[in-house]
Amino acid sequence: MEKFDLHILGCGSALPTTRHFPTSQIVNVRDKLFMIDCGEGAQLQFRKTHLKFSRLTHIFISHLHGDHCFGLPGLISTLNLLGRTAELHIHSPKGLEALFVPMLAFFNRQMTYKVLFHEFDTREPAMIYEDRSLTVTTIPLRHRMPCCGFLFEEKRRSNHILREMVDFYQVPVYELNRIKNGADYVTPGGETIPNNRLTIPSEQPRSYAYCSDTIYLPSIADQIRGVDLLFHEATFANEDASRAKETFHTTAAQAAQIARDAGVKKLLIGHFSARYDDESALLQEASSIFADTQLAKETLCVTI
Amino acid sequence: MEKFDLHILGCGSALPTTRHFPTSQIVNVRDKLFMIDCGEGAQLQFRKTHLKFSRLTHIFISHLHGDHCFGLPGLISTLNLLGRTAELHIHSPKGLEALFVPMLAFFNRQMTYKVLFHEFDTREPAMIYEDRSLTVTTIPLRHRMPCCGFLFEEKRRSNHILREMVDFYQVPVYELNRIKNGADYVTPGGETIPNNRLTIPSEQPRSYAYCSDTIYLPSIADQIRGVDLLFHEATFANEDASRAKETFHTTAAQAAQIARDAGVKKLLIGHFSARYDDESALLQEASSIFADTQLAKETLCVTI
Repeated sequence: MEKFDLHILGCGSALPTTRHFPTSQIVNVRDKLFMIDCGEGAQLQFRKTHLKFSRLTHIFISHLHGDHCFGLPGLISTLNLLGRTAELHIHSPKGLEALFVPMLAFFNRQMTYKVLFHEFDTREPAMIYEDRSLTVTTIPLRHRMPCCGFLFEEKRRSNHILREMVDFYQVPVYELNRIKNGADYVTPGGETIPNNRLTIPSEQPRSYAYCSDTIYLPSIADQIRGVDLLFHEATFANEDASRAKETFHTTAAQAAQIARDAGVKKLLIGHFSARYDDESALLQEASSIFADTQLAKETLCVTI
Repeated sequence: MEKFDLHILGCGSALPTTRHFPTSQIVNVRDKLFMIDCGEGAQLQFRKTHLKFSRLTHIFISHLHGDHCFGLPGLISTLNLLGRTAELHIHSPKGLEALFVPMLAFFNRQMTYKVLFHEFDTREPAMIYEDRSLTVTTIPLRHRMPCCGFLFEEKRRSNHILREMVDFYQVPVYELNRIKNGADYVTPGGETIPNNRLTIPSEQPRSYAYCSDTIYLPSIADQIRGVDLLFHEATFANEDASRAKETFHTTAAQAAQIARDAGVKKLLIGHFSARYDDESALLQEASSIFADTQLAKETLCVTI
């Protein structure tokens, strides 16, 4: 299987603790690296993964709270010191470019590469990235400011040709691409050979949904239905449910409820409040609703 | 003895490694905390010291390179989340305020406390902080941009009165302050009692010199002569001496040379280049010139 890994760089929330970094993740899709959020220290944690900085091409920022983007100036400066030449794309809600450009210009007098900012509207889902094998779509969330999650979806690959059947029916080479994409084959004698005798289906495309800071929002279940992995913020435990609502955050139990409603395969929770000395209560509360729940932690790598 | 401790929060240089944070230190003088430089992740490392954030009153930034100040937005925002009310003073070369104020205003819509910026000229030594027990003076350095180190000096405290001698000579209470400050006592009969019969000297005032990014600058020895502890950058080993010169940095051996020339009591070296997997060569090269040399490392605390 092609690589599709999630690396947790940080899974704390805004207040620093001795155990967590603020939010940042790397998604590794076939050795192309995508960063989701970039809290302070993201570049330090990135280094610990031993992934190559040069493989990073796109950064997706969920919202403009400091604990999700204060790592950007350091990371961008480091890529410059390393002599990067490839463009770096940063996707975010409106406002990031205006804030960061003066600072970047001051701290990097000579840039060896271009940083391109792409700002998205957070109100409707929008596909903000596409390549041959992957799309990234925003997931509108509800927080104290415009905020989106991100849905990473592999594209369905073409079917695998069964060489012996193609040889048996003497299928001409120029038909093969159509057959890979699902067409039946009609022999010169007029017989229709159904596609499923000529091919086996490609692997099921995989998907990862990242749900950043948000109040409990059951309606997102539709958009993330059946994903292989859901990361959902779980800032608070049940006992702090009213605090969660006030601050537009989610409890671990609510995150699990969404995982269950959406029929996802696996749930990873994070963005833990600094008030908990450990997150075992959060895990327990979520697991009682959705069994396949795991706590995020720094340096964790989950294969999707 | 009153507290005078140095905590190393980070001692790497600009490129991230798996072992070091960028530059930041805390000086704890009698439970007043002073931060020197504030590289990315400083607030996370600060938390690990278990010192109280609320005790931090002044931050001194040596120069406006990102690895010395990218931790400021996160720290300032955290202090706001914690509901700080006391003013925070940030001392730096010119330019910091203009760069950071728009960003701070965006990320902290409502500030619970004031951040006051104080910009200093880096060309001449200047006393930029003073309280009852301490002064902080800039140490002009030579880097690729305006840059200063900082000299922390305890003030000499008044002498300790020898109670039995004061009783013996029946010194009136109103004379005691003058005697503490070194005056002799003249009895009603006209006899002069020398101060050193009435008092014992207070402890020798202690001092700490922080020398940030700089090319080898032997002339600073005069200003830091005899300090109890010298931190000096030692970015490079001997084999990279030409690189040190080109980039306006110092080798470990040159840092030791300055420690020896200035007759300091102890040398701590840091700001290590990311190119070294460990710093044993740096320690060896420095120690051969100045024996009492120590490598800085994260979470190290040195009592001055």
